Amino acid sequence: MTFSYNQLFSFTEAVFKSIGCPDADAILATETLLSADLRGVDSHGVARLVGYVRLWEAGRINPAPRVGVTYETPSTAVVDGDGGLGLVVGPKAMQVAIEKARQVGTGWVSVRNSNHFGIAGYHAMKALAHDMIGMAMTNASPLVAPTYSLDRLLGTNPIAVAVPAGEQPDFVLDMATTTAANGKLEIAQRKNIPIPEGWAQDAAGIGSTDPNAVKNGGALLPLGGATGSHKGYGLGAVVDIFSAVLSGANYGPWVPPFVAFLQPPADPVGQGIGHFFGAMRVDAFRPADEFKAHMDNWITTFRNARATEGQHVLIPGDPERETASRRLLDGIDLLDPVVRDLEALGAKFGVKL
Amino acid sequence: MTFSYNQLFSFTEAVFKSIGCPDADAILATETLLSADLRGVDSHGVARLVGYVRLWEAGRINPAPRVGVTYETPSTAVVDGDGGLGLVVGPKAMQVAIEKARQVGTGWVSVRNSNHFGIAGYHAMKALAHDMIGMAMTNASPLVAPTYSLDRLLGTNPIAVAVPAGEQPDFVLDMATTTAANGKLEIAQRKNIPIPEGWAQDAAGIGSTDPNAVKNGGALLPLGGATGSHKGYGLGAVVDIFSAVLSGANYGPWVPPFVAFLQPPADPVGQGIGHFFGAMRVDAFRPADEFKAHMDNWITTFRNARATEGQHVLIPGDPERETASRRLLDGIDLLDPVVRDLEALGAKFGVKL
Repeated sequence: MTFSYNQLFSFTEAVFKSIGCPDADAILATETLLSADLRGVDSHGVARLVGYVRLWEAGRINPAPRVGVTYETPSTAVVDGDGGLGLVVGPKAMQVAIEKARQVGTGWVSVRNSNHFGIAGYHAMKALAHDMIGMAMTNASPLVAPTYSLDRLLGTNPIAVAVPAGEQPDFVLDMATTTAANGKLEIAQRKNIPIPEGWAQDAAGIGSTDPNAVKNGGALLPLGGATGSHKGYGLGAVVDIFSAVLSGANYGPWVPPFVAFLQPPADPVGQGIGHFFGAMRVDAFRPADEFKAHMDNWITTFRNARATEGQHVLIPGDPERETASRRLLDGIDLLDPVVRDLEALGAKFGVKL
Repeated sequence: MTFSYNQLFSFTEAVFKSIGCPDADAILATETLLSADLRGVDSHGVARLVGYVRLWEAGRINPAPRVGVTYETPSTAVVDGDGGLGLVVGPKAMQVAIEKARQVGTGWVSVRNSNHFGIAGYHAMKALAHDMIGMAMTNASPLVAPTYSLDRLLGTNPIAVAVPAGEQPDFVLDMATTTAANGKLEIAQRKNIPIPEGWAQDAAGIGSTDPNAVKNGGALLPLGGATGSHKGYGLGAVVDIFSAVLSGANYGPWVPPFVAFLQPPADPVGQGIGHFFGAMRVDAFRPADEFKAHMDNWITTFRNARATEGQHVLIPGDPERETASRRLLDGIDLLDPVVRDLEALGAKFGVKL
């Protein structure tokens, strides 16, 4: 079924208000969440609304958090999310990074006591309107085995980097540090088709093409898969350290699960999950128009490279931007199980989809 | 043949002095270059000395550069390397980043008009003694094809991140953003054995296990290889943009080649090659002893994970640190062709190996 962006916006905003979010927070959370649906990252959008509500029902999300800076220097801050929705905590922390960049050239904010924040790319892109480079990362529930490990110690720990261009569309990299996102695995599970090599290992640590390998005690593999997973492991580790060891959030196997039916570890090493945000004013390095002219040249050079038959070279962010333009006009397709979840939520809170 | 670190140090220092490096710069360049040999990255160490000398002979390296800050804000700077050895420019730029971090919490330095700087990890590790997280990246001669591209547009563009721990050894990630470093390909070429899938493509853009594929018009593949090279491409692109579009160095296909027998592009878009350095004081986020105690916990948790048969989980930097301890004691093995190159250099400059 297809819904307009506005339809989904009103519905989601009303649900967030129903669980006790203040008006401004409900709008902010909705915009953040739906940016995933717009950009085609369906696994991280409105399909997760029911998950957030269940966490709230389990008492694991504070719908009206007092998000605040607990420590700072001119270019850094630690933000305590007060157990709030990452969808609200994230944009507020990114705003702190942007303010600091305005003052001293760059701003870097590590966040504790938060929850899942939607797609990393949305947060990084907040910097673009200020002629800044934006960065965002987050740790997440442990599903990934480091190289040689049988234990799951890392999340899919994404990294996003957004760079402003001039006449060309902006450069927006948004990537999990695993070979495949968990969402892709779930699709293969539903269709019961084998997964490509390099995505997952089984409970014995052997590479597997079984779509149920992770569910049955296996793990997702870090980016690089069979031939270089130590690099993806290293990147995921950096995301974990910047997001949680710097801020005082939980890290590694202590990151609380997103699903409400799994309990968080009883011996936390910090508070909630962690994020890390950065903003760099491009004119803290060279005049912004000069920088953007060279970004345009960079982008057109790469886009116009000779390509393999029937393909062309993409710039990070191209596919997501094109999906967003299309979905704003034509609406957003949701799978039937997602629609049923939303209708059940609507019935619970007296909100019409 | 095996040489002691001190033997190679005296020799290399004397060669750098012979090409006109001031005493302090010759020592600095030697320490930077030999850090690669110590840490087991043989492709980036003294084996490249003859390459640097050839670039100097071709008039493409300034042995006595005036390295200086051309623009700055409290947390950022642009450094002009004046065409010097990256081995000298790099450490000086990293020092600027560390000074800025001391003042305002973090420091970020983009460098233009430089040359190859050895291993990225060495530069990032400079931050550790100051209880700072260090970061270093550099662009490099184009050998890598973005996803779907037939053209080589990126270098192996490494990223290094060094994080101080307490009682545990420090965390040091140092990785090319390709599946395999070019050095590994050269080894396969010499032995004439096939390379693993995901390392390279041939001139038609088809994945190849031919060790000569890159030499014959093919390209190295970004990290992720067959199943996720768009992520490695994105990371290599970020390194290129931070190192060169921010600083005014050459980027993409314009990065000048390391080998003197290939001419730099006639239409440069900037000056020399580019680097990017970062330093973050950990106590700009939380007390340093608290941070380091949690890093120790992070490291021991990962190191003690259950592992596949006969393996154990490594912390980034473990293998390189162990190699360095061993080589400081037992000396550094050099291949015969490298020894012959060094002897020829010694004869040219009247320096004994």
